[in-house]
Amino acid sequence: MQVPSPSTREAASMYGTVVAIFLVILVATLQSSAPPENPFPYQVPLDPEGSLELSWNVSDAQKTVHFQLLVQELKAGVLFGMSDRGELENADLVVLWTDGDRTYFGDAWSDQRGQIHLDSRQDYQLLRARRTPEGLSLIFKRPFDTCDPKDYLIEDGTVHLVYGVLEEPFRTLEAINTSGLQTGLQRVQLLKPSIPIPALPVDTHTMEIRTPDILIPGQLTTYWCHITELPDGFSRHHIVMYEPIVTKGNEALVHHMEVFQCAAQFETFPQFSGPCDSKMKPGRLNYCRHVLAAWALGAKAFYYPEEAGLAFGGHGSSRFLRLEVHYHNPLKIQGRRDSSGIRLHYTATLRRFDAGIMELGLVYSPVMAIPPRETAFVLTGYCTDKCTQLALPPLGIHIFASQLHTHLTGRKVVTVLVRDGREMEIVNRDDHYSPHFQEIRMLKKMVSVHPGDVLVTSCTYNTEDRELATVGGFGILEEMCVNYVHYYPQTQLELCKSTVDPGFLREYFHLVNRFNGEEVCTCPQASVPEQFATVPWNSFNRDVLRALYGFAPISMHCNKSSAVRFQGEWNRQPLPEIISKLEEPTSHCPASQDQSPSSHTVVNIGGGKG
Amino acid sequence: MQVPSPSTREAASMYGTVVAIFLVILVATLQSSAPPENPFPYQVPLDPEGSLELSWNVSDAQKTVHFQLLVQELKAGVLFGMSDRGELENADLVVLWTDGDRTYFGDAWSDQRGQIHLDSRQDYQLLRARRTPEGLSLIFKRPFDTCDPKDYLIEDGTVHLVYGVLEEPFRTLEAINTSGLQTGLQRVQLLKPSIPIPALPVDTHTMEIRTPDILIPGQLTTYWCHITELPDGFSRHHIVMYEPIVTKGNEALVHHMEVFQCAAQFETFPQFSGPCDSKMKPGRLNYCRHVLAAWALGAKAFYYPEEAGLAFGGHGSSRFLRLEVHYHNPLKIQGRRDSSGIRLHYTATLRRFDAGIMELGLVYSPVMAIPPRETAFVLTGYCTDKCTQLALPPLGIHIFASQLHTHLTGRKVVTVLVRDGREMEIVNRDDHYSPHFQEIRMLKKMVSVHPGDVLVTSCTYNTEDRELATVGGFGILEEMCVNYVHYYPQTQLELCKSTVDPGFLREYFHLVNRFNGEEVCTCPQASVPEQFATVPWNSFNRDVLRALYGFAPISMHCNKSSAVRFQGEWNRQPLPEIISKLEEPTSHCPASQDQSPSSHTVVNIGGGKG
Repeated sequence: MQVPSPSTREAASMYGTVVAIFLVILVATLQSSAPPENPFPYQVPLDPEGSLELSWNVSDAQKTVHFQLLVQELKAGVLFGMSDRGELENADLVVLWTDGDRTYFGDAWSDQRGQIHLDSRQDYQLLRARRTPEGLSLIFKRPFDTCDPKDYLIEDGTVHLVYGVLEEPFRTLEAINTSGLQTGLQRVQLLKPSIPIPALPVDTHTMEIRTPDILIPGQLTTYWCHITELPDGFSRHHIVMYEPIVTKGNEALVHHMEVFQCAAQFETFPQFSGPCDSKMKPGRLNYCRHVLAAWALGAKAFYYPEEAGLAFGGHGSSRFLRLEVHYHNPLKIQGRRDSSGIRLHYTATLRRFDAGIMELGLVYSPVMAIPPRETAFVLTGYCTDKCTQLALPPLGIHIFASQLHTHLTGRKVVTVLVRDGREMEIVNRDDHYSPHFQEIRMLKKMVSVHPGDVLVTSCTYNTEDRELATVGGFGILEEMCVNYVHYYPQTQLELCKSTVDPGFLREYFHLVNRFNGEEVCTCPQASVPEQFATVPWNSFNRDVLRALYGFAPISMHCNKSSAVRFQGEWNRQPLPEIISKLEEPTSHCPASQDQSPSSHTVVNIGGGKG
Repeated sequence: MQVPSPSTREAASMYGTVVAIFLVILVATLQSSAPPENPFPYQVPLDPEGSLELSWNVSDAQKTVHFQLLVQELKAGVLFGMSDRGELENADLVVLWTDGDRTYFGDAWSDQRGQIHLDSRQDYQLLRARRTPEGLSLIFKRPFDTCDPKDYLIEDGTVHLVYGVLEEPFRTLEAINTSGLQTGLQRVQLLKPSIPIPALPVDTHTMEIRTPDILIPGQLTTYWCHITELPDGFSRHHIVMYEPIVTKGNEALVHHMEVFQCAAQFETFPQFSGPCDSKMKPGRLNYCRHVLAAWALGAKAFYYPEEAGLAFGGHGSSRFLRLEVHYHNPLKIQGRRDSSGIRLHYTATLRRFDAGIMELGLVYSPVMAIPPRETAFVLTGYCTDKCTQLALPPLGIHIFASQLHTHLTGRKVVTVLVRDGREMEIVNRDDHYSPHFQEIRMLKKMVSVHPGDVLVTSCTYNTEDRELATVGGFGILEEMCVNYVHYYPQTQLELCKSTVDPGFLREYFHLVNRFNGEEVCTCPQASVPEQFATVPWNSFNRDVLRALYGFAPISMHCNKSSAVRFQGEWNRQPLPEIISKLEEPTSHCPASQDQSPSSHTVVNIGGGKG
């Protein structure tokens, strides 16, 4: 796509500012195009105080999102929009602003210095603006893809929403720079899949796993750990749905919550309710890692497919559960009490299939490493045909949900299904992935994996701010590349992941030594992280590491549980060959378009209910 | 740029076919916009019989080319256009065709199967169509860049012109497929630089170096070698201009011509006039390699800048000259006689500066190699700051012309001037380079090279049809990457080229051995070509070779003549660092454009001169 030069754009935008004065549109007359009742099923607070609230819905047919922005206390205006990773520069924005006299609404964009410009194409369409008892309500809509290169393309996966508050009037839109405003970001999955909600069994019961009216610490980040247990003699049940319970008033503080089942190997677990990083936390709680339920901001209830449920309770499973709540408290609010948690809906009438969770991607091993100062380094983990051939039932499995996972430098994650060497479909993809926003996402369409299929999981990392290589591992400063896929029927295969063959990595260090003379000692007796730490990261050593990961045989973990492998030879396996790639979706945008004249809309904000 | 889907395009094109019937434009009325007298200074025959002749001119101000296509015997129509490398598929075309009733002219394109479609934007504008005693003359124009993604972008350097002859009427344009036609290609430099022609000295004399009325062999390719000599006692002169002499009727057969001076080390050279590959050719003629003049199809006279001339004659230079004429005779025409050659214009009044020729790029060495089955592998040769610092005069040199050179797999060549690590300007660039069309090209703008500057020459190769690595060398199946730059004032520096450091290449072979186990023997006692021949070309060995060439130190040839180096340490030199790249020229095309309705023009071909 070609972007007009700033001067053309500025001229167009100035022209727009002038004509707008004559362009009074009575937006109230457009009300009829607002969607019908309960029109905005999804909701997030944008700011930590919750004074800006976004609701939205998604029309797959029209490929359009309708937004409602509720501004509790309008000052001189507000801006809202989207950007690649939540920055206020190079953002796609709608701006409501006043010059002190009139109030305007316009599709705008910010440049790399945060300076705002009116967009030459007005793709956000204002449908209604009115004062309500809760505040100013703005309803507007936008296509997923506006075909305007200045606009954000709304894709599946994470979307970084941004907002800003205008405290005073601005004579023109171009006088606004986002750097001078109170701004922030919020991550959501905007394009929720439209899946029919399965009916719940008549004998559905509920169980609430909640924090016991705790005091939220007045600090930026708290992970709260709370141990609870199933009733004595609780038999095997199927979880068929779960939903968040968020204490009223804390909507902007509760960032995500997960319920884990503890390991069956221990008879009992100690009681505990406190920060997960507390010195007082019993070590045994680290054995409570089997995910039962997970929720993150903006998500709604999670329904299992009608034919499957997640087994819990009964013989061979632990009675102990760990609830983990992530409180995100940037304003360091003190004294707020909270009883948030998750409500499990379960049935004793077991469904036809047990659901299972399988781990795809990379083994947690330092042999997979990312050089420092890379903006987009890709690591790839494989679940090979040999493993799926051995471990999957003849009719295959059906993946219905997925949770992507990396540590701090992860920027994109994707899993692709490969059959007979051909990429068939995307299992899950997030091109705006953030490690700070990991939720279990229902897939738009279930993906069936047959015995002999290959699953390729690739993660893209940004290590621009690192000085040393980032190696794979459990530590928060180490990296992971994982896709937890939720599927049925459950199989014994819990983990289908890979690493590069360690022997080939030794050859790499040997080569680094040979090519760099006596200066470097990546001594063979040193550990892999130590060896990576001494590599001089010139272009050759970077390129060769990349080439190695794209070529060397792999070591497979095709495991029943994290320690028990399926029988077979799993070392020095050939890298799966991919002979044909999925085509990028072709854009619906025309090669050339009418340049519609730029304008913004003068808004009449009527009082009352009209 | 986005291309509309074929269905949209087809619909538009069908629409065009319908409306055209009502769109009778009297093209004769447009005559006034045809350019003034001698309007088409450049000329090439398109087909081997010369029955299609193209003339053209270039307006740098309007960034437009005016074409005149002369069709000696019009059958049912003709097509003409341009494509990336001369293929008739994916070509940008103008088509003159008849449905038996009316004759049409339209801007069209061919898809990857050769099927012709009317273009949704008509960017070729017909200015005049009339019958003349020589045949049908069509005059039309086109901007260099039409902003239509279906159109060819006319750039500096080689343009591959294509043509086709329609033998019978077609009911619609879409019924034409180029695969069923008599077609062909011709290479030219379309955008000749508009440089004022320097005045010739009053005492200019001419000397014609021509073949002696020879019989052109009835075979596809002949390189004819003809030895001639300067008059006895011919003193030092300056060549100030030279021009082609092409025997009338042979315009389509004479492909290129060069005049070489023989080496001064030999007192005398034997007489010879015959094919250069003849067994009868005396071996000593291989010592006649110093270029004095070179011409290729479509080129006009070559003028030296007013302040410089190319010295020949006099003490210390050979009296013997070798003329080489390349006859391209695809129809294997027999019995054609030829006396083509080059007319040198020279003066005894020596100009202020001697002109010189310097060789930039890669040393002819097998250490630089291209893996097989590569579509665009790049090799780069350097003329380093250390060499220019030592060898260039304090005020630098001025490059005014350039001849690019590779062997058969070369596809692009570019030389960039780098100063203080920053790319400053392009010396010469050809993105549609063909080894079959090597001409000396005047630069649009002289390039001054200062002591301490770096000259970076990169060649892009296509080895898709090769099974083994292609190594550097003199052989026609080996490769070169050379830019012969013509400059003044002449210096001692004849050759400023590089190769990768051979020690680092040895490490590469060592690494290939280590990574491929016992299977491969790239034995150290083998020659470099032998070692390259045994490399298994997996992705790793390709990637690492590419990484090596982009990283390893270089060995410099900073030479006075091909065997004598300037004094200094030239081995294991650091690769010049480039900290900032030249920006790609930004397109003038708007981000979005009006979609003008598609149509072609009904043509009235009047008789006579009107």
